[in-house]
Amino acid sequence: MAAMGSIERKRVVIIGGGFAGINAALGLAHLPLDITLIDRKNHHTFQPLLYQVALAVLSPAEIAQPIRSIFRDHRNIEVLMDEATGFDLPQQRVLLKTGSQIEYDYLIVATGSTHSYFGRDDWAFLAPGLKNLEDAVEIRRRVLLAFELAERQMQENGTYPPLKFVIIGGGPTGVELAGAISDIARLYMARDFRHINPSTAEVLILEGSPSILAAYPPDLQQKAVKQLADIGVKIRTGSHVTEIQPGYVMVGDERIDCTVTLWAAGVQASPLGKLLGVPLDRRGCVIVDQFLNPPDHPEIFICGDLAHVEENGHQVPGVAQPAMQMGTFAAKRISRLVAREMGSDGTGLTEPFHYFDKGDMATIGRKAAVANIKWPFHGRWSGFPAWIVWLVIHVFFLIGFRNRLAVFRQWAWTYLTFRDGARLITGSQELPGWNLKYGAEESSSPEPSTATKP
Amino acid sequence: MAAMGSIERKRVVIIGGGFAGINAALGLAHLPLDITLIDRKNHHTFQPLLYQVALAVLSPAEIAQPIRSIFRDHRNIEVLMDEATGFDLPQQRVLLKTGSQIEYDYLIVATGSTHSYFGRDDWAFLAPGLKNLEDAVEIRRRVLLAFELAERQMQENGTYPPLKFVIIGGGPTGVELAGAISDIARLYMARDFRHINPSTAEVLILEGSPSILAAYPPDLQQKAVKQLADIGVKIRTGSHVTEIQPGYVMVGDERIDCTVTLWAAGVQASPLGKLLGVPLDRRGCVIVDQFLNPPDHPEIFICGDLAHVEENGHQVPGVAQPAMQMGTFAAKRISRLVAREMGSDGTGLTEPFHYFDKGDMATIGRKAAVANIKWPFHGRWSGFPAWIVWLVIHVFFLIGFRNRLAVFRQWAWTYLTFRDGARLITGSQELPGWNLKYGAEESSSPEPSTATKP
Repeated sequence: MAAMGSIERKRVVIIGGGFAGINAALGLAHLPLDITLIDRKNHHTFQPLLYQVALAVLSPAEIAQPIRSIFRDHRNIEVLMDEATGFDLPQQRVLLKTGSQIEYDYLIVATGSTHSYFGRDDWAFLAPGLKNLEDAVEIRRRVLLAFELAERQMQENGTYPPLKFVIIGGGPTGVELAGAISDIARLYMARDFRHINPSTAEVLILEGSPSILAAYPPDLQQKAVKQLADIGVKIRTGSHVTEIQPGYVMVGDERIDCTVTLWAAGVQASPLGKLLGVPLDRRGCVIVDQFLNPPDHPEIFICGDLAHVEENGHQVPGVAQPAMQMGTFAAKRISRLVAREMGSDGTGLTEPFHYFDKGDMATIGRKAAVANIKWPFHGRWSGFPAWIVWLVIHVFFLIGFRNRLAVFRQWAWTYLTFRDGARLITGSQELPGWNLKYGAEESSSPEPSTATKP
Repeated sequence: MAAMGSIERKRVVIIGGGFAGINAALGLAHLPLDITLIDRKNHHTFQPLLYQVALAVLSPAEIAQPIRSIFRDHRNIEVLMDEATGFDLPQQRVLLKTGSQIEYDYLIVATGSTHSYFGRDDWAFLAPGLKNLEDAVEIRRRVLLAFELAERQMQENGTYPPLKFVIIGGGPTGVELAGAISDIARLYMARDFRHINPSTAEVLILEGSPSILAAYPPDLQQKAVKQLADIGVKIRTGSHVTEIQPGYVMVGDERIDCTVTLWAAGVQASPLGKLLGVPLDRRGCVIVDQFLNPPDHPEIFICGDLAHVEENGHQVPGVAQPAMQMGTFAAKRISRLVAREMGSDGTGLTEPFHYFDKGDMATIGRKAAVANIKWPFHGRWSGFPAWIVWLVIHVFFLIGFRNRLAVFRQWAWTYLTFRDGARLITGSQELPGWNLKYGAEESSSPEPSTATKP
């Protein structure tokens, strides 16, 4: 693209194509700047609906959008599929995995967070978390396979180990996963299996703190507990998992058997924060000021889950809304700084970031939710009305018109017909902790039992 | 399920949930038989549309259906997710990977075919073929990643190795893959990339025999060649690939560079045929009589790609139509045999299998096809009318009403808007033969080059 006039265009580099990065880029899109958005993946993922992919209601393509296509019509935005591996802050350069470097005048780092297994990285395989599409497909595989293997054992031996899905962590993700698994077992799977009774599957949330949904007001927490109980989800609070093994977890000395174990407990900041060489908090988030700058770097903005921002003494939570708002704020701030450099008076430069909290919501199964709404009115909703609100908002915020249509249709179809979404088992056909293996290379057991048709 | 009356119900075991197996089960569904359908996967895949998943037009869930859900309302059909590993023919038992055995009165083996790399199994990783959903997602990953890596190199070095997609094999699958890749490059990718010109990507079919689409009449072959040329696909016939390496293939002494190499050449029968201990043809297909029985086993039926059936001196081809017809035939034949055992006169028992050839068709890109129609009228169509016929037939034969709707909508959307289907790159971010790697564990090159924004 040719330079406009004789003034050299400022270069803005955005690392991360999540909510913060996408919103920052969109906020800068109409300005005479050269913007580069870097992401390891070729797609933006709408994380609030990842659990619906994990539980086979939606397909990966319905909640993801290639980043290039989001910015197709913004000629000043370059999309680079690469991974940032370091920084040269004095030279204002980002180092990339492919070995090259990219220069910036302004830098936005929005690489989010990842799972934290509290130093037990060996748990990652045994209890996968839910951060990206690959995770979602893996969780889908394990949950569906658990039912298949149980059916298989029942046909063969007339008995099977009870199906038990343990979700470690009772935050919004844990609650949504638990509700969705329970729904699948009770409403959908029950119609497909003949020998096992999927609706007897147990879904258990293990939460370390005294309550699930710690960020919600106590009355909504209680409503969530009740709604979860209504669909058969059990909750144990104050339960710290001390060990995860194939087929069981330990809470202190107690062994809890589980068919599938999922991780919705700890998150930690993206390791890129550490490479900036600026102060971090305990979870690795970059401590930034009210302009989202780390100390002494007014040209660097940290947005989304990677940022530790305090407001009224509380840390702004690591969810979609503040990430979007931070991205938009950084874009606005950069546009003002550039305008000042260009000779404008820099009006509005002193306005700090303010998190406009519209509320929180989490679904509980297919027709209930809790919503702590703060805008455009104050209200605490639960049950079906909250679910409807959740649905409308999530369809609205999905990126890509095609996705909005597809998700809405898919939900309507599933809701009205109780019919299959996308219950495909792809990939390996093994489940950690099961002695039954399908498609694996191991030889089968030496003494075959004889199963006849029941 | 309780036995009906005092007569013991006959047990039919079907191995394989492809077109043949599904149609056999549906053909037996309303009879007082106990049917067990065994498949390694939990889903039936509509193979004729796999290439559209591979080329990111459709999503996996749109062309696959969980087998359990197909037979949800047929209480006499059991679905077993397991793998057959052998047979005990005298005892009439199938051995399963999990170690158990299952008894049958009638057995239908319909495990299809797999890629044949002519003894060079090391080629499988370098040139993936297209037989299942995992293959399709892998091919999608490689094709999309090739464009991303080229863009990345162009941004960094101002040059990139020409994009060249080589498809080994010029049968229907090879032709459809080639047409779809060319379409993607010319029509869709061209709008998303800034630095490279995706429409200059070369698509080359290497065919060993003197002509592509060997099963089609010469005039349609020539039309296909012309239509492929119109969308930029090159064809080299009489070209036997003698070596595949990362980044290139050898045809005799000639080296042909390629970014992505795909395999659409050889197929071989499922290895299960060999385990039956009955005569096989050169490709491992079971040679059966006109009742689809191998010699001396009137209780065993071989259906679909695994069967070597001759009709008028020609082998019935290994495609969807004959597979469906064989499945239906086996079901009918079994129902008559059972009726005779039950005391009926066995009317119609002598009627042999006859392949009712309705014709063949293959698409060439997004708006052309060749169709050699033999029923309900004779006709050789090509171009857009053939494409419309192809579309209607494929939507009609898709299993599952939801899939039919979804595929139709997806096609309409893509066709009318030129907008994204499901262009997601998931999984590893490496491409065999490229020195650029993303997300891999290797350290990046020691001497970083400096790239500034172009």
